[in-house]
Amino acid sequence: MLPFSVTILGSSSALPTETRFPTSQIVNLNDRLYMIDCGEGTQIQLRKFGIKTGKINHIFISHLHGDHIFGLPGLISTMALGGKKGELHIYAHSELKIMMDHLMKFMNELDDFKVVYHPLSFRGRAVIFEDSKMVVDSFPLKHRIPCCGFIFREKPHELHLRGDKVDYLNVPIRDRVALKSGADFCTPDGKIVPNHELTFPPDPTRSYAFCTDTICRKQIIPIIEKVDLLYHEATFADDLSDLALKTYHTTSKQAARIAADAGVKKLIIGHFSSRYKSVKPLVDEARVIFPNTFPANDGDRFEL
Amino acid sequence: MLPFSVTILGSSSALPTETRFPTSQIVNLNDRLYMIDCGEGTQIQLRKFGIKTGKINHIFISHLHGDHIFGLPGLISTMALGGKKGELHIYAHSELKIMMDHLMKFMNELDDFKVVYHPLSFRGRAVIFEDSKMVVDSFPLKHRIPCCGFIFREKPHELHLRGDKVDYLNVPIRDRVALKSGADFCTPDGKIVPNHELTFPPDPTRSYAFCTDTICRKQIIPIIEKVDLLYHEATFADDLSDLALKTYHTTSKQAARIAADAGVKKLIIGHFSSRYKSVKPLVDEARVIFPNTFPANDGDRFEL
Repeated sequence: MLPFSVTILGSSSALPTETRFPTSQIVNLNDRLYMIDCGEGTQIQLRKFGIKTGKINHIFISHLHGDHIFGLPGLISTMALGGKKGELHIYAHSELKIMMDHLMKFMNELDDFKVVYHPLSFRGRAVIFEDSKMVVDSFPLKHRIPCCGFIFREKPHELHLRGDKVDYLNVPIRDRVALKSGADFCTPDGKIVPNHELTFPPDPTRSYAFCTDTICRKQIIPIIEKVDLLYHEATFADDLSDLALKTYHTTSKQAARIAADAGVKKLIIGHFSSRYKSVKPLVDEARVIFPNTFPANDGDRFEL
Repeated sequence: MLPFSVTILGSSSALPTETRFPTSQIVNLNDRLYMIDCGEGTQIQLRKFGIKTGKINHIFISHLHGDHIFGLPGLISTMALGGKKGELHIYAHSELKIMMDHLMKFMNELDDFKVVYHPLSFRGRAVIFEDSKMVVDSFPLKHRIPCCGFIFREKPHELHLRGDKVDYLNVPIRDRVALKSGADFCTPDGKIVPNHELTFPPDPTRSYAFCTDTICRKQIIPIIEKVDLLYHEATFADDLSDLALKTYHTTSKQAARIAADAGVKKLIIGHFSSRYKSVKPLVDEARVIFPNTFPANDGDRFEL
């Protein structure tokens, strides 16, 4: 299977702490890097964790609160100074382009490097990005301003050939390629051998869902159902559920309930309020409901 | 003497490194905090070095390149979240307000906290701030965009009373206060005792000059003459003087020459290019011309 991982660059909520920067993550599928959110100091975290800034060509922004975007200007400046070529694609609320255009007014000319903004809709689920390996969907969350989650899904893999059988039938190379894509095989004497006789099922596709910032929202359950890895915000412990409701955030217990109801394989909680010196109580609270819960810590890498 | 210090929050030039954040400093006079520049991650440095964000009421911005301002949005958000009251005054190019207004559009309402922008002129020397302890002047530097330096000067101190003499003459409290401000003393029988017979000279006033980003510019010498502490950028070593010229920066050797010609007491060099893993060669180069040179390192505090 191709390497597929999520690296946490920041795990705090609005206020950074000594050990937690604001939200940002890197999704790495086979050495293609996709960034989610970009809080202040993200470029510093990339450097600290040895991730090459120049390899990031796509950035997905959940919403326009500062702790999710204030690292963008510095990151883009650094990319430009580093001689990045081609296009950086940013998927975000349409207002971001206006904000950034004003802010970057005094930046040096970008020469061969261009930032392309793709406005997101916050109304329903939508495919917002696709390449040869991955499809990314956005879907609405519910926060104080328009906000969406993202699902990263591997594209279906090729079928595996049954080596003994294709050799026995002397299947030509061209037909082997077709077999991997699901075609049946036609022998030289015109006999059809159905695909399933010559192949094994493909590796399962993996998926990662990212949900922050949001009030606890059951409507996302069918969308994130059975993902391999779910990152869900857990800004507060459950004793502050009133505050969570008021500020449109989720408690750790609520995040675990969502994970359990959606039947996901593993849950990462993060976006912790700076009031928690240790997040162990939040993890403990979640594990009562969903045992396979882990806290996001800056620098952690989760393999899918 | 009142405590008067400069703390380095960031000492890198445009690209932050693992150990150097972009430019920001705190001038502390008797526990009043004044910030100069605010590169990305400044709020993280404040937290790291135990400096209370809420105590900063005045920020002076040299110019609008990202490595000097991209920390402002996050810092202001954090101040607001921390419940800061009253006014934060920012002294900068008039364009900054426009940039910030766009960027902060999605921020929560500030309630009792207001940001007041004071546009700077970049044409000549000007008093831009004054309180009971300090006067701050701006003066033009020469960079790729409008840029100015700042001088922080303590206001003249009170005269010291000659305790033996004022006691001998039974000088009343009210007249002692007047004596400290330079008044003569009139005895109950109408005799005038001149001030200098009853006082010692005041403590000397101290001054700090901040000069970055700029090409090496001799015109600043009369302005910064004899300051106690000069921070001058030294982005490059002298073997890259052509690059310094091209990018409107100064070499370490040039910074030392400025310090020597201006007769300052101590020089801090900073704003180092990220190419220098060690800045020792830059310090060594400066010390040949101006021995009392020190490198800025994040977290360093220089007492005046």
